[in-house]
Amino acid sequence: MHVEARLQALGLVLPAAPVAPPGIKLSFAWTRVRGNRVYIAGHSAQAADGSFIGPFGRVPSEVTLEAAQAAARNTALSILGSLKRELGDLDRITAWLMVYGMVNADVGYPQTTNAINGFSDLILNLFGADIGQHARIAVGMAALPLNNAVTIAAEVEIAG
Amino acid sequence: MHVEARLQALGLVLPAAPVAPPGIKLSFAWTRVRGNRVYIAGHSAQAADGSFIGPFGRVPSEVTLEAAQAAARNTALSILGSLKRELGDLDRITAWLMVYGMVNADVGYPQTTNAINGFSDLILNLFGADIGQHARIAVGMAALPLNNAVTIAAEVEIAG
Amino acid sequence: MHVEARLQALGLVLPAAPVAPPGIKLSFAWTRVRGNRVYIAGHSAQAADGSFIGPFGRVPSEVTLEAAQAAARNTALSILGSLKRELGDLDRITAWLMVYGMVNADVGYPQTTNAINGFSDLILNLFGADIGQHARIAVGMAALPLNNAVTIAAEVEIAG
Repeated sequence: MHVEARLQALGLVLPAAPVAPPGIKLSFAWTRVRGNRVYIAGHSAQAADGSFIGPFGRVPSEVTLEAAQAAARNTALSILGSLKRELGDLDRITAWLMVYGMVNADVGYPQTTNAINGFSDLILNLFGADIGQHARIAVGMAALPLNNAVTIAAEVEIAG
Repeated sequence: MHVEARLQALGLVLPAAPVAPPGIKLSFAWTRVRGNRVYIAGHSAQAADGSFIGPFGRVPSEVTLEAAQAAARNTALSILGSLKRELGDLDRITAWLMVYGMVNADVGYPQTTNAINGFSDLILNLFGADIGQHARIAVGMAALPLNNAVTIAAEVEIAG
Repeated sequence: MHVEARLQALGLVLPAAPVAPPGIKLSFAWTRVRGNRVYIAGHSAQAADGSFIGPFGRVPSEVTLEAAQAAARNTALSILGSLKRELGDLDRITAWLMVYGMVNADVGYPQTTNAINGFSDLILNLFGADIGQHARIAVGMAALPLNNAVTIAAEVEIAG
């Protein structure tokens, strides 16, 4: 349980399963496992009880870069929560592969890279460079679910 | 031919191969198969003859949520048409893995999730939960090919 | 060295490793290899020295379609530069699989397909149809890193 020990050492808690807000239906799985791959749906920041806590709105006009970075970091915890429920043990993850970092960005905002670093830096810190390293996009969207400032999807490898 | 029987029972017909509109060149494959994976290019709703039928425009200011949901459902038929031409038999699909649902959305539109459910609900209905379940993004874009309201790409697993 | 011979015959030179502009931190890998897959991060056009050369801005109001096509073509060279550094020999690539073509597009711009063809046509020219063929999205974003007009990510297969 190396990753979970490191989470604990950092004082980080994984949120409960996502709670769909009223009027939103979730016709998909938060994680999909086949063979040694886990496909991870778009997640956003959650409170400990699983509710979505945002921030909501566009970066940077409504949500600062710093708040977007914190949202990206919290989104890593949301994804780790889903992976923990799916896999039982986060140490089953043998490699992060690809990360789809999406920012609810003002038109032409050039700092989406730094916003998504909030996610990548925590993953690298928790898993180390060998397992945590990943290719990535960090791009600006016209809209994200619930008007979240940050939504992130990913693909990871697990031990067969 | 379970999936095709179910399509027939629902009165659904798969469209012919996509027809590129004048002035648009398609320098890619609608499907790319390697080993047990099929990578599926971005598709949009088509008529039976393969032409793109939209709706075109932004959701919800120009295209209603209900029309976007219907477009997402029709896009599932476009993708199934491409998969049928590639695989011969849709029952060769052993698992839906990841779906990239893209909505031509007004800035900050918070309902992209419900729009893409039109796709996911039909896939789950046709393939059942075990095979049809998938991780997903459902996000808003600044622009989509031909100004389509909905474009969807995906990755599926097939029997070796 | 078939692909590199063809690059040379076309007078094309691969750029040096990407140079992060001041104030931008790159918390990710340009390529991530596992087994027979390479996941390729979002790249943009680079000069021979590795610096990002744009064009920057929105298509078509600030950057013409023709300039976006050239940027997409140059982005192919950026990606091939990263793959060459990672793999040593571009002929280790046995199949292009999926391409994520992203255009910094004006709202509702319907020509993202033709913009990304600048990438796909060069890949097909260099690798031939069997290896070079790929599924693809070609879509419009609200924002791209550094305000680039074009950013492209991809997944390829390599010889075990």
